[in-house]
Amino acid sequence: MRREPVRPDIAELELTGISRIAVGAMHDPEVIPLWFGESDIVTPDFIREAAKKALDDGQTFYSSSRGTPALRAAILRYHERIYGLGLAEGRLIVPGSTMLAVTCACQCLLSDGDEMLLIGPYWPNIARAVAICGARIREVRLNEGPGRWSLDLPAVEAALTPETRAVYVNSPSNPTGWIMTAEEQRALLDLCRRRGVAVLSDEVYHRNVFTGRDPAPSFLEIAGEDEPVFVVNGLSKGWCMTGWRLGWLIGPARLAEPLAVLSECMSTGATVFAQAGAIAALEQGEEFLATFRERCRINRDLVMDILGGHPRVDLLEPEGAFYAFPRIEGVRDSLSLARRILHERKVGTAPGYTFGRGNDAHLRLCFAIDTPRLKEALERIVQVLDD
Amino acid sequence: MRREPVRPDIAELELTGISRIAVGAMHDPEVIPLWFGESDIVTPDFIREAAKKALDDGQTFYSSSRGTPALRAAILRYHERIYGLGLAEGRLIVPGSTMLAVTCACQCLLSDGDEMLLIGPYWPNIARAVAICGARIREVRLNEGPGRWSLDLPAVEAALTPETRAVYVNSPSNPTGWIMTAEEQRALLDLCRRRGVAVLSDEVYHRNVFTGRDPAPSFLEIAGEDEPVFVVNGLSKGWCMTGWRLGWLIGPARLAEPLAVLSECMSTGATVFAQAGAIAALEQGEEFLATFRERCRINRDLVMDILGGHPRVDLLEPEGAFYAFPRIEGVRDSLSLARRILHERKVGTAPGYTFGRGNDAHLRLCFAIDTPRLKEALERIVQVLDD
Repeated sequence: MRREPVRPDIAELELTGISRIAVGAMHDPEVIPLWFGESDIVTPDFIREAAKKALDDGQTFYSSSRGTPALRAAILRYHERIYGLGLAEGRLIVPGSTMLAVTCACQCLLSDGDEMLLIGPYWPNIARAVAICGARIREVRLNEGPGRWSLDLPAVEAALTPETRAVYVNSPSNPTGWIMTAEEQRALLDLCRRRGVAVLSDEVYHRNVFTGRDPAPSFLEIAGEDEPVFVVNGLSKGWCMTGWRLGWLIGPARLAEPLAVLSECMSTGATVFAQAGAIAALEQGEEFLATFRERCRINRDLVMDILGGHPRVDLLEPEGAFYAFPRIEGVRDSLSLARRILHERKVGTAPGYTFGRGNDAHLRLCFAIDTPRLKEALERIVQVLDD
Repeated sequence: MRREPVRPDIAELELTGISRIAVGAMHDPEVIPLWFGESDIVTPDFIREAAKKALDDGQTFYSSSRGTPALRAAILRYHERIYGLGLAEGRLIVPGSTMLAVTCACQCLLSDGDEMLLIGPYWPNIARAVAICGARIREVRLNEGPGRWSLDLPAVEAALTPETRAVYVNSPSNPTGWIMTAEEQRALLDLCRRRGVAVLSDEVYHRNVFTGRDPAPSFLEIAGEDEPVFVVNGLSKGWCMTGWRLGWLIGPARLAEPLAVLSECMSTGATVFAQAGAIAALEQGEEFLATFRERCRINRDLVMDILGGHPRVDLLEPEGAFYAFPRIEGVRDSLSLARRILHERKVGTAPGYTFGRGNDAHLRLCFAIDTPRLKEALERIVQVLDD
């Protein structure tokens, strides 16, 4: 029996390395922010106008907690358009943010003593979402080269245990920029099928693609509708809508009712008038997506030019998302390095250690911001590396 | 070892009785809707305009996932103004909706095998939120009369077990309209202190008060800042902002960092421009609150006039919130009765069974809608009872 009612594992939760370094400096206008996963572009006008019109029209009441009927229809049409997939309507919930969609998937899969295998380097809040469910994580790191990041399938297979309920993978990847190939997806899905393990696929960067097909390959394209495959996605990263908190989960058809219950009990749905903006984004957003992707591609090339050739840097070219994840020679404590860059040169970066094991010589740099400002930030980082 | 990765208890989750009866008929314009917990009043203009201005100003980026600094400050000022309380800033998170705040509190307290004691009749999603955490519920029903609903403290004490982590109470109450007195609060808190049990107090109807002080008594007024007392609140019910999905949690000061992690990992915060509307609501909303409360008071009296005197009805006068929870003589299946009222007379009501044990002769009626329409709905219900 516990001596006090608060869960000890919850009482020990700690903020990520990103929050840890950014606290106190995130509102400093002198700091060039490469630490968060967003650009400096305000959400496009046509999306904001759609949300404002919904407010004017009085869309301030409860709607379906699985998502407004209009947004649900728009998301299904979007999947038809970009993947050629006709998904069963009951598979879809829009509980709120993409992170909340991750949590709903974790809740379908995890309870005390279960394990989730994370393909690393991974976004640190995933590990916390698993811990909040009372489950443990295991980690298998991608192969870092030669030439590109790639899935280490034998290591994944070796890391599965009888307690493993799911493998989490994020492609295009935060923080590496890796895009999982369709072959890697099929191999992982086959392994998971053989071992009775679910897949939780975070595809929120599916339109942030520099290499190969846009959209990036999706597990939706290869999994049967009743398999334990959970795909999360959302608008934050492609459409510059981080403040909107809108994402969705597509799960097995047979779980339609429990998914609806989760969406209702977690949040009772997403902000209703914001969902009107999401419809505009999905239906009129292709031009913006292309423009933003082109900016990020130019910025990716700039990062490779300035950092990729530096003698202390090993940097695999990002294939998607909008992060570079360089390894810095001679560094053993990424938080100290990130703090040095912040304090000496006023650039905000994310320390590698927070993205799982094996990353304490790395930094994550978000390269989605305005190109000249990014160039200035990269030059400041080089000054620190040259010191 | 489970044979498949999905949790069996999740796979069995079922929608509430409200969703069950409303599905298929919720968009029928002929149905007068008393089933959901909202009025027919669009969110006031000044609140919508504040959100629109935030969109125009480009508030579309990430902010603190604990809530925007401006909203957090506004919520703390609001507590100072209405309760005279200066709360430590770290106790507050604004993770998204009030329901998400409930979930964050449950996650602080519950894991597999734990128990939460619910004071019933209770809003059914609470029980599901507990189940999603892998915990069990126990229930203790309020005394139904004489004269008013009241806390059955001896029954609460008898229902506590070594596994009980928290007592959940909602006052003003959905569905009964009960307002817990300050004396009842102190007695419950004393009991929980003696037994090492937390309190989860849902105070979302704190401004929907007909009897006694406005705001209703809060556990924040009697609990120490480091006690395991979790108070959730939000804007949906007082300010007619159900579609905004904005609520907050105030927890123990010593849990400031884990609360911040929960807010970050569940949703990474609420919709940012909606939070601008919330500031307007808190700071300029008193006139609207008074107007809406007066409408609800008139409607409450109308319900007592029309239903309260009916020979088949036992109805304790609601002291707050905006629900009546009559017991209907001769009824043993509230879902059948609600379906009859829906199909024969086109009025949507919520069947009592979904609010916990002992309520299958009851219906919940939301009386927040336009008075003439409410009168029509009540008269139709009487026709069914008279049949």
